[in-house]
Amino acid sequence: MSNESPQTLTWIGDARSGLLRMIDQTLLPCELTEIDCADSQTLWEAIKMLRVRGAPAIGIAAGYGVVIGLQEHVTEDAASFYSQVEPVVAYLASSRPTAVNLFWALERMQKKATELQATGQTPVDALDALLVEAVAIHDEDRQMCHDIGRHGAELLAEGDGVITHCNAGGLATAEYGTALSILFTAHDQGKKIHVFADETRPLLQGARLTAWELMQHGVPVTLICDNMAAQVMREGRAQAVITGADRVTARGDAANKIGTYGLAVLAKAHNIPFYIAAPTSTFDMTLHDGGDIPIEQRADEEITCGFGRRTGPEGVNVYNPAFDVTPAELITGIITERGIISPVTEENVSAMLG
Amino acid sequence: MSNESPQTLTWIGDARSGLLRMIDQTLLPCELTEIDCADSQTLWEAIKMLRVRGAPAIGIAAGYGVVIGLQEHVTEDAASFYSQVEPVVAYLASSRPTAVNLFWALERMQKKATELQATGQTPVDALDALLVEAVAIHDEDRQMCHDIGRHGAELLAEGDGVITHCNAGGLATAEYGTALSILFTAHDQGKKIHVFADETRPLLQGARLTAWELMQHGVPVTLICDNMAAQVMREGRAQAVITGADRVTARGDAANKIGTYGLAVLAKAHNIPFYIAAPTSTFDMTLHDGGDIPIEQRADEEITCGFGRRTGPEGVNVYNPAFDVTPAELITGIITERGIISPVTEENVSAMLG
Repeated sequence: MSNESPQTLTWIGDARSGLLRMIDQTLLPCELTEIDCADSQTLWEAIKMLRVRGAPAIGIAAGYGVVIGLQEHVTEDAASFYSQVEPVVAYLASSRPTAVNLFWALERMQKKATELQATGQTPVDALDALLVEAVAIHDEDRQMCHDIGRHGAELLAEGDGVITHCNAGGLATAEYGTALSILFTAHDQGKKIHVFADETRPLLQGARLTAWELMQHGVPVTLICDNMAAQVMREGRAQAVITGADRVTARGDAANKIGTYGLAVLAKAHNIPFYIAAPTSTFDMTLHDGGDIPIEQRADEEITCGFGRRTGPEGVNVYNPAFDVTPAELITGIITERGIISPVTEENVSAMLG
Repeated sequence: MSNESPQTLTWIGDARSGLLRMIDQTLLPCELTEIDCADSQTLWEAIKMLRVRGAPAIGIAAGYGVVIGLQEHVTEDAASFYSQVEPVVAYLASSRPTAVNLFWALERMQKKATELQATGQTPVDALDALLVEAVAIHDEDRQMCHDIGRHGAELLAEGDGVITHCNAGGLATAEYGTALSILFTAHDQGKKIHVFADETRPLLQGARLTAWELMQHGVPVTLICDNMAAQVMREGRAQAVITGADRVTARGDAANKIGTYGLAVLAKAHNIPFYIAAPTSTFDMTLHDGGDIPIEQRADEEITCGFGRRTGPEGVNVYNPAFDVTPAELITGIITERGIISPVTEENVSAMLG
């Protein structure tokens, strides 16, 4: 994001009395309001209520959350201070029970605390060191986003139209995001790209978040309904489709927000390259192909009364899969922080993942 | 519709004191309310406010509207009575200035009135004869819908899953509709079909009207977001896609609600037949191909604040085409009241249209 834009997550102050400032994403795009988390209860509630969302962003917030949770214990003796690490971690972990990055970040913070205790660090020094660790998690994510952006921007030419789906942007990560990082970078390079953002039913992350982020950054964006992407392609207005991914398998099949698979089929029919932007941490090498990925079914009400009024008949059957899987054969390339996997084959995935 | 279902349009009573009863479609699917139009002002408002919608249904309503508008003049002398035909027609024509069927039906009623005057019919007899003409318009449309249903149902097999888009149902016509007529007929034949209704953003006619009509008729239906159709196809749950059309050209290109073209591309990629259901009156033989059809652009707010609250950022660019054009090459067959055009070629269209 440019310097004047608000950040998804910002640490303010020192370890002992600092706080985590975040954009309340539940109020976007109508209101840009930041909230300050100066105690772990406020942070817990923010994660729970999706004020901060997106796997990487939740992990980063949790890292800072360990520092915040230990602040009140820094004046206690070392044994007492270190004994508080586990309850703080357990409390934060209870906010979103299925968020993998949340557990990963908390485990990393806990491991760091164990090392600090073993080397006899005082509570004051330990809190400083834990903030350094949380900042490292934040910085590594920021670097990953920038690297994806740099690699992906090479694929875009002056004046390209790009379709994206859902929100793979800075709001879900430290900064810049994954798919959107590529668009921000290409724009910053002066390539005069134009983005078509699918609104992304049922929860409209494309309309509410992606369009908002692109506008904040000054990238030309046009909002469309999901069912208009084919027409945009047919009119020759899209030269690429780029989305994020929630999980990628060993052979390169990619699970992402429902609608991604259809976009990939349409892109192929129109001879438009289809790219997935995903950090290597998104790859699950224990899964061979997309058929192994369980597809979460979500509540009927997201479709029948998602935005304040009922739009489907009472009692109607609803099918509401949260994700679909795009097979590797439909993916022109997967853009990671280490480089681009293309063509997408098991061998090439394996080579990139090392 | 089965006998117990409310009808889109029903004439109640005789020519002299009768009225037109209609479902107020603006309240669906939350409320099933019928309104009685006993004067031409109420009917004019109902057409204007989309309480009755769909080209054939508007035409039928207008036919009855001429009878209603002349009721108060039936006691006047013949010259005075007949002089009221033109103002009544002009008034009704002003309700929806771009509705082709509205003008067609009013012209037919006016022509009938001219004949009646020329043969010296009294106002009382003329009003009876005008009601007969309005009923004929209604019956012809009903027959057309049934014939489309009969031809189309032959294409469906026991247990088929069928995807449909927008609303080409009984609410838009005299009864049964075009695409939905095929589904009602196959269901009545005991074929145990299952329908997937696209919600059809931005105005959600699929969720609000199609799902409701199918449920009323007892046809198993599952509501999906537009971006889920590809996944339904991939899972092998759809054996056909059937939609209506707003206009069909001489070579068989079909303009229909935005999203239809994308569905046709997806159907082809999954080897699923894609059908258009359209009466021969929908064909515009003055247009050769789909590129000649102007695409209406609609208001941004349909996308940015369609659900009762704002879901897109203030000031965002929006692309909101009302229609797209599916080229003949992607259409397996066009189901008309006279039979099925397949393969869809200029020669076959010309042969069917006679």
